[in-house]
Amino acid sequence: MSGSKARLYMDYNASAPLRPQAYDAMLAALLIDANPSSVHTDGRAARSLVDQSRQQIDCLFGGQAKQMIFTSGATEAANFVLTPDWTMGRAPVRFSKLYVAASAHPCLLSGGRFAFDDVVQVPVTEHGTVDLIILEDLLDRHDAASGMPLVAMPAACNETGVMQPLTELASLVRAKGGTLVVDAVQMAGRLPIDLSNPAGDYFILSAHKLGGPRGIGALVALSDLMMPRPLITGGGQEKGHRAGTENTVGIAGFGAAVQAALIDMAEERWADTVVQRDRFEAELRMLCPSAIIHGDAVQRLPNTSFFSLPGIKAETAQIALDLDGIAVSAGSACSSGKVGPSHVLEVMNAERVDGALRVSLGLDASDADIDRLLQSLQRLLKRSKTARAA
Amino acid sequence: MSGSKARLYMDYNASAPLRPQAYDAMLAALLIDANPSSVHTDGRAARSLVDQSRQQIDCLFGGQAKQMIFTSGATEAANFVLTPDWTMGRAPVRFSKLYVAASAHPCLLSGGRFAFDDVVQVPVTEHGTVDLIILEDLLDRHDAASGMPLVAMPAACNETGVMQPLTELASLVRAKGGTLVVDAVQMAGRLPIDLSNPAGDYFILSAHKLGGPRGIGALVALSDLMMPRPLITGGGQEKGHRAGTENTVGIAGFGAAVQAALIDMAEERWADTVVQRDRFEAELRMLCPSAIIHGDAVQRLPNTSFFSLPGIKAETAQIALDLDGIAVSAGSACSSGKVGPSHVLEVMNAERVDGALRVSLGLDASDADIDRLLQSLQRLLKRSKTARAA
Repeated sequence: MSGSKARLYMDYNASAPLRPQAYDAMLAALLIDANPSSVHTDGRAARSLVDQSRQQIDCLFGGQAKQMIFTSGATEAANFVLTPDWTMGRAPVRFSKLYVAASAHPCLLSGGRFAFDDVVQVPVTEHGTVDLIILEDLLDRHDAASGMPLVAMPAACNETGVMQPLTELASLVRAKGGTLVVDAVQMAGRLPIDLSNPAGDYFILSAHKLGGPRGIGALVALSDLMMPRPLITGGGQEKGHRAGTENTVGIAGFGAAVQAALIDMAEERWADTVVQRDRFEAELRMLCPSAIIHGDAVQRLPNTSFFSLPGIKAETAQIALDLDGIAVSAGSACSSGKVGPSHVLEVMNAERVDGALRVSLGLDASDADIDRLLQSLQRLLKRSKTARAA
Repeated sequence: MSGSKARLYMDYNASAPLRPQAYDAMLAALLIDANPSSVHTDGRAARSLVDQSRQQIDCLFGGQAKQMIFTSGATEAANFVLTPDWTMGRAPVRFSKLYVAASAHPCLLSGGRFAFDDVVQVPVTEHGTVDLIILEDLLDRHDAASGMPLVAMPAACNETGVMQPLTELASLVRAKGGTLVVDAVQMAGRLPIDLSNPAGDYFILSAHKLGGPRGIGALVALSDLMMPRPLITGGGQEKGHRAGTENTVGIAGFGAAVQAALIDMAEERWADTVVQRDRFEAELRMLCPSAIIHGDAVQRLPNTSFFSLPGIKAETAQIALDLDGIAVSAGSACSSGKVGPSHVLEVMNAERVDGALRVSLGLDASDADIDRLLQSLQRLLKRSKTARAA
């Protein structure tokens, strides 16, 4: 019955469908055949494509980016920026410890090029926001003689959608002589990055979470005083910060997706998604009063709902929804099909639940889509109740 | 006059035009919207795309690849594999020195994660082939107590097209207890990789040199006993060898390009290109008897001619040809528009010439194309003679 319906994709935080504008830009870029480092006319055409995308993406930062290094995605950008070894001009600069939110994505938590012992996890509250008092204490106790403190925070959690108080974080880190790396992967293109106050020093971006292609991302610096030592060397591309021929097709799609996302944000289209998400959560609570919605007491991304249905395993629910044609996730998709407990639930002290389901919506989520999701969950709840009664 | 003609692209070694089969595969892949790590139906469709490409690319190795790790290109693959720190199962394995051909691409010469002092350049002869006697001597003097020797060699030089004697190299390295990394970027898809004899242990590939897209490459291992420590961490993709969401569109294009290249090789289509290249060189010598064609005494790629015209600067010639609508290069394109002396000419002891021009042809190079190139060079030679006479 439901098998004949079109599939319903509600896993935007794992990968957002390609925006038509990105598709068109990639089609055009596929026809440009040269290496952007070649000095002939053909090469310069490829180069101008890269330059144009850089300008489009810079608009996420109000044109204030001082450096934008294209990478193969957010994970490479994280490995690039999370390093003890930096340079200021030609002088070496050293960060001795990395302080990273315990709810961060694994690509931040792994600490990049920091030694395991130099990575300090900063606890989060039960709501998923970083504990600012503990962070302040950690930074106060930081041994500045060994090097500066580097702090890495997700602007918004990929699982819960919970947003960190960036302005307070940036002010605190700045006051303590640290540098703030913001994982803006889930926030960029959904909510504006407010640069009227300090909001961070380095930003990690991924194209495919905002409607661009997979395989392209960037590290953006708001100051060009200091830069991390390159991760990938052996070529002069990206002003020497990242060697390797540029992914011109991916870069073109990234720029076009950002441009389209900026228009959606200017038109405040995500407000409709918040309405759908909130209606979903309200009706879910009516269907199942004991449902736990993680992070719902604090500010979240407009499109994300991360919830546990007591007595129902998240993996089981995910498969049941998939059979009903609905794609959601049971935690992060980052680990190649590996199903394991969510570290985010754990650090939010919610490990007593049997995992959680993540619904992450796109701008096109309709009343009918939410109804279909609710109906599928209702059937699941009914089956579970019957099974327990038997 | 010539400005109205279609552009003539003869810079395949910098970046080959996208093959139609790769274009079609990428178009299809653009419609698959999910993350290949997601366990739902949509994610599994993306996953199967990646798996299919892996099988297609494995055919370059007669289906014998034990590991194939997708990277953002050859430069990342080089930075990944050129490291002192490897693992065999869970046990650490150490390489203490990297021996790399002096004519290698900068992404090998930079030594990846080896310390500067642990990278040893292996000289090449005036013909551009590695000096096997010196390499043998270096490996004999290698201090095995400190770790094993890692040897990195280009199968074919990107500038001259000169090919290394892979079978002899692989036998020598194996006999001395070393491991051979082959940069197969310029050879793959143009000449078969002969695996009937030892030919190397790890192979670096790039999609865009064989008609796939830029921004995707791979490291291929013929044995899975040892693997280099990951360069990019923080996710379980690629069996833990390389974190980050896969570039599905790029991977699809890579696989399709390899499949098409294998058909071209099976049909021996590059034999026609050799004929064109050889005719070009014969007529160039008639136009300018003092022209030097680098590496012409040894085995070269079928499509490459690297030559110096005495009294004419390579950069000047490159610009003149570009104005005539012909794209060639003056050395490697790897350094973002940077024009400098070719390190390959230098190590071949040919630094007395004013640089060299690289013509690198595609399968479609026609008689008319070669004639147009020769006419353009003839005009250049005439102008230069007039200038010198004045």
